[in-house]
Amino acid sequence: MSEIKNVINQASVYLNEEDQLVIIDQTQLPNRLIHLVMNTPEDCYKAIYLLQVRGAPAIGIFAGYSMYVLSKPLVDLPYTEFLSQFHNQKEYINSSRPTAVNLSWALNRMERKLLESDCTNTKDALHILRQEAVRIHEEDILMCKAISEYGLSLIKDGDGILTHCNAGPLATSRYGTATGPIFLGRERGMQFKVFCDETRPLLQGARLTSYELTRAGVDTTLICDNMASVVMKNGWIDAVFVGCDRVAANGDFANKIGTNTVAILAKHYGIPFYTLGPSSTIDFNTASGDDIVVELREPAEIKTMWYKEPMALEETKCYNPSYDVTSHELVTGIVTERGIVYPPFEENLEKLFLK
Amino acid sequence: MSEIKNVINQASVYLNEEDQLVIIDQTQLPNRLIHLVMNTPEDCYKAIYLLQVRGAPAIGIFAGYSMYVLSKPLVDLPYTEFLSQFHNQKEYINSSRPTAVNLSWALNRMERKLLESDCTNTKDALHILRQEAVRIHEEDILMCKAISEYGLSLIKDGDGILTHCNAGPLATSRYGTATGPIFLGRERGMQFKVFCDETRPLLQGARLTSYELTRAGVDTTLICDNMASVVMKNGWIDAVFVGCDRVAANGDFANKIGTNTVAILAKHYGIPFYTLGPSSTIDFNTASGDDIVVELREPAEIKTMWYKEPMALEETKCYNPSYDVTSHELVTGIVTERGIVYPPFEENLEKLFLK
Repeated sequence: MSEIKNVINQASVYLNEEDQLVIIDQTQLPNRLIHLVMNTPEDCYKAIYLLQVRGAPAIGIFAGYSMYVLSKPLVDLPYTEFLSQFHNQKEYINSSRPTAVNLSWALNRMERKLLESDCTNTKDALHILRQEAVRIHEEDILMCKAISEYGLSLIKDGDGILTHCNAGPLATSRYGTATGPIFLGRERGMQFKVFCDETRPLLQGARLTSYELTRAGVDTTLICDNMASVVMKNGWIDAVFVGCDRVAANGDFANKIGTNTVAILAKHYGIPFYTLGPSSTIDFNTASGDDIVVELREPAEIKTMWYKEPMALEETKCYNPSYDVTSHELVTGIVTERGIVYPPFEENLEKLFLK
Repeated sequence: MSEIKNVINQASVYLNEEDQLVIIDQTQLPNRLIHLVMNTPEDCYKAIYLLQVRGAPAIGIFAGYSMYVLSKPLVDLPYTEFLSQFHNQKEYINSSRPTAVNLSWALNRMERKLLESDCTNTKDALHILRQEAVRIHEEDILMCKAISEYGLSLIKDGDGILTHCNAGPLATSRYGTATGPIFLGRERGMQFKVFCDETRPLLQGARLTSYELTRAGVDTTLICDNMASVVMKNGWIDAVFVGCDRVAANGDFANKIGTNTVAILAKHYGIPFYTLGPSSTIDFNTASGDDIVVELREPAEIKTMWYKEPMALEETKCYNPSYDVTSHELVTGIVTERGIVYPPFEENLEKLFLK
């Protein structure tokens, strides 16, 4: 069981013993486990922009710690000057990945905390910022744990689980969301047979999920995305667990490209399909999946496959959506830290979160 | 229209002006168009084994020409010795890819033709072998043309077509099968919007299909396999055309891994799904898809992605089936050179081919 402890205790974003902000460079996995110390605003900007740190919750945690450590060199400034530079750094970090909701959420939370406090000097400000950053991190740990508990109640020892993309410890904190129930169950001596979609084009399923699960001693099998229907047809899958980037009021949700395909396949083969995520991903202002705009990414991700030779002609067009939207009709349940929501989703999401 | 002529007239397997056997090295596309002359039995063996020549019909054509050109250096042997060496070469070539049905089919056809003839000398034998090899090639051209005509009757100018893997000119002769209707329509001035699945793990859709279609002036868009559901949901797809490696008596069929997923998605979105192939792929001795054994391939194809750094830990398991089986219930029609077969398939396949 020490294997599983090693994985869930290895934070991908943390303060080290010298109170420095450190991240695991996720672009180097699974080949090299490299820890990077963030010394400057430029380091922090680059870490997000280059996807060295990724996963919505991990980005939120990173943003919190960034605002703290980047404020430390400002400690000798007059307080108004400190606040002004703090704000500039916040705006700069925020511009690294404008569509990442958790980034601006955490940055704004840090600034609000400071401005709403009675603080009048930089020393106290640093104290407040550190406390708030740690709180963001700790809240995420508790949330992931709760989601994992609810998810674990849906499966039993020995089950076959299919997952897509990465929503494990690297992308969050400790247990993770989509793969949280698997880590939690493993910690309690259970074993599952997990199939990981490699998740083209950026291969987070291959590079990160199968890495985390294999290292944790979970029985893990990597497949290409187009093989998911075969493992389902073979009778190897008892449940599908995926993450979510945004859940609409009616239960439609956006997640990594390919999720919608997995949902349709699961429905076809009568396999329960769950999405797991914190309640902060439920957006009651978005009525349905039709209102979610999907980011289109560079053709190079499809055409050049990790810097090797081109795989298609220069003039061939590519369509490269990074997310897709899964209809609530394909979803068995939405697992959150406050409980599992079943259809009818519109009614039951409201009941659990708005009333 | 010269673009389309260039593509369909560029045979991937042919005799050149010096009567040598030449192939296009399909492993080098789309980056380099390299023609290889086959001088020795070892050249021929390697070409099949390394997938320099691939696609069931192309392999059959290649096998026919191989038996002819490899027999030429044997012309001065006594006839019984010639026949014995011919047979040895045949067995050697056959061992290059034991599961390729078209390979043994064409090799056996060449030998049978020789043995069933009145031939008593090596010169006449060479003449017979050349004639039979050319006949195999010409039959394939006619068959592809007929399949393409039937397929074209199913779509109209401007339609969006999704295809998976490669069953075009490189894999067959001239028009191809799955993409044959698109090339034939293009030749007649029609235009289609074609979406090519890249087709992991060996990427034949990216490297070969999008190459052929783009060069032929077809409006071609490359997608990752996990994006097919999105282009369907967007309303961009009017029909799905795929090839087939073996069709069972009940209409279930094996084809490149991922085909079954595309069929389930097409059914979900109400899009007609057709498989196109010669009647020789219909195997009445195979009752259903359950009786088709699928080749499992090396984990390295998934884990190392074209010789770049590993994408998963050494100890991570992989499941790498090269084909999957699509249930007849998901198939709208089976397009062959003798016509289009609709459900009930068991009855109608028999009617067209056995009665």
